[in-house]
Amino acid sequence: MADLATAFSGRPVLITGGLGFIGSNLARRLAALGAQVTIVDSLIPAYGGDLFNIAGIEDRVRVNIADVRDVYGMNYLVQGHEVIFNLAGQVSHLDSMRDPYTDLEINCRSQISILEACREHNAGVKIVYASTRQIYGRPRYLPVDEQHPLEPTDINGVHKLAGEWYYLIYHRVYGLRTVSLRMTNTYGPRMRVKDARQTFIGWWVHQMVSGEELEIFGTGKQLRDLNYVDDVVEALLLAAASPDAEGQVYNLGGDEPISLIDLAKLLVDLNGTGSYRLVPFPPERKRIDIGDFYGDYRKIRDQLGWQPRVSLREGLARTLAFYHQHKEHYW
Amino acid sequence: MADLATAFSGRPVLITGGLGFIGSNLARRLAALGAQVTIVDSLIPAYGGDLFNIAGIEDRVRVNIADVRDVYGMNYLVQGHEVIFNLAGQVSHLDSMRDPYTDLEINCRSQISILEACREHNAGVKIVYASTRQIYGRPRYLPVDEQHPLEPTDINGVHKLAGEWYYLIYHRVYGLRTVSLRMTNTYGPRMRVKDARQTFIGWWVHQMVSGEELEIFGTGKQLRDLNYVDDVVEALLLAAASPDAEGQVYNLGGDEPISLIDLAKLLVDLNGTGSYRLVPFPPERKRIDIGDFYGDYRKIRDQLGWQPRVSLREGLARTLAFYHQHKEHYW
Repeated sequence: MADLATAFSGRPVLITGGLGFIGSNLARRLAALGAQVTIVDSLIPAYGGDLFNIAGIEDRVRVNIADVRDVYGMNYLVQGHEVIFNLAGQVSHLDSMRDPYTDLEINCRSQISILEACREHNAGVKIVYASTRQIYGRPRYLPVDEQHPLEPTDINGVHKLAGEWYYLIYHRVYGLRTVSLRMTNTYGPRMRVKDARQTFIGWWVHQMVSGEELEIFGTGKQLRDLNYVDDVVEALLLAAASPDAEGQVYNLGGDEPISLIDLAKLLVDLNGTGSYRLVPFPPERKRIDIGDFYGDYRKIRDQLGWQPRVSLREGLARTLAFYHQHKEHYW
Repeated sequence: MADLATAFSGRPVLITGGLGFIGSNLARRLAALGAQVTIVDSLIPAYGGDLFNIAGIEDRVRVNIADVRDVYGMNYLVQGHEVIFNLAGQVSHLDSMRDPYTDLEINCRSQISILEACREHNAGVKIVYASTRQIYGRPRYLPVDEQHPLEPTDINGVHKLAGEWYYLIYHRVYGLRTVSLRMTNTYGPRMRVKDARQTFIGWWVHQMVSGEELEIFGTGKQLRDLNYVDDVVEALLLAAASPDAEGQVYNLGGDEPISLIDLAKLLVDLNGTGSYRLVPFPPERKRIDIGDFYGDYRKIRDQLGWQPRVSLREGLARTLAFYHQHKEHYW
């Protein structure tokens, strides 16, 4: 297993989407490891980037507000880094159906721009791409491993799939040192909780902390796995620090698949108060819903030594505590 | 098996890329069946569209020069048709690596535009999408059926894969009546033979008819299957006329997989004169080469009754005759 302090201390790294949920948690960890962190973020209002996410580390990171769609900006910004964590993206499935063009620009065109910029200006850089379990679509079997067919159910899934292939092809054809992580539901402090656009779990935390009733779509029996954000950050760092990871694609995944209804119960339990109710699936969500999902993460466990460390109970408790404390910044 | 005369006589149909190789052969057949054919083509010089391709049927088709990237134009042009054959595309693998942005615009963004235009302005239309065996990448087994993993080796393959998924998703989410055909090497009269950018077989025909030596990359032992264009046109028409095809993806494929060296020998034999030589693979081509390929077309045979009718020998003979006769228009 890679030694992360050695791997990152003093090293220049770039995080696109670095003011967002996962990006900012990654930035905090990298700053703690002594890395020279540059954050690129567009601060598009609906996407989750927020300067409060880096409160306390402002003097240890460089923040460059820019959009990854800006080709010339990215040509400059990719230079001089040893690692690029490419987390910028449009992640809302519903938004991708309402506006497929913007999803295409951010999740496809910008990925090409970043790869072309690296190929021309920083060919030795290691690039970690944030992919998603969404590209599998409705599981044909569980748990879903990396060999599972890729059958996305929405435009966002198609574009994330294309994005992942760009990284593989630039590795195979040009030798760029790329690796992709297919993330499942990630939760924790600094996630976007303003609405249900990006994740259901963020919206549930919002409702719980606000004393509102949780709404569960459908029967509530749908299974999901979840990763606490610190575990995802660990996976990103291991992928970046491990030469064996180059040209690979890895699932993340949780150890405790849970039904939505049980997850709601657990949240109510941890929160000390609250309630939930079942509501019919909105048709626009039902049409792109993937049913039960949980992932098989044995490949990254065996090759890079990663596994989730934070239990669902512990992670949710930390998350609730964070939002009870910092509610005013995230509502 | 659908009755094509009944299906198309008097019916308004649109062909994007209709001045190109396959599009123009399709237009000729549809005109013969009595359809009201509208052709949309951009006449981008390197892509294969050519007004000579519709010589003799000019008065039976309507030609509208436009680029499928033109959203407003397409919004208008999709209206009033019962069937759209969507053949416009960037098909060069090498070009997609040199200029991934243009490939993205044509093979992804424009497909979204066309689907959005149909969803809003012609939701009942049947749409046939020209996909490609390129999305399979290097075969893991032969013959390649529709269940084979999709592992494109170049940017064009990624974008054609994304394009095919758009058609599936717009079928599943919005009920659009879409179908995709994954074509293998198609050859015949009216293919682009100016250079090797789009197909090797076109360039070989050029060399053969010009009395030049054919160049075969590598060992010449790579297997390929080929379809004569009239057979591909038949498949397009059957896909359009068959309600069972909606939401489906079908391989085309040839009955006679052949090594490149044997194909070269057959061409020399049919041409009566000529020669070939083996040359090393250019590195830029080697990196995206897919090795041996031939497809399994049993699904479309069993469901739609399609199978190739024109033997390789017959098809190549017709092709050589066409270019010997019309050389001045295609060189």
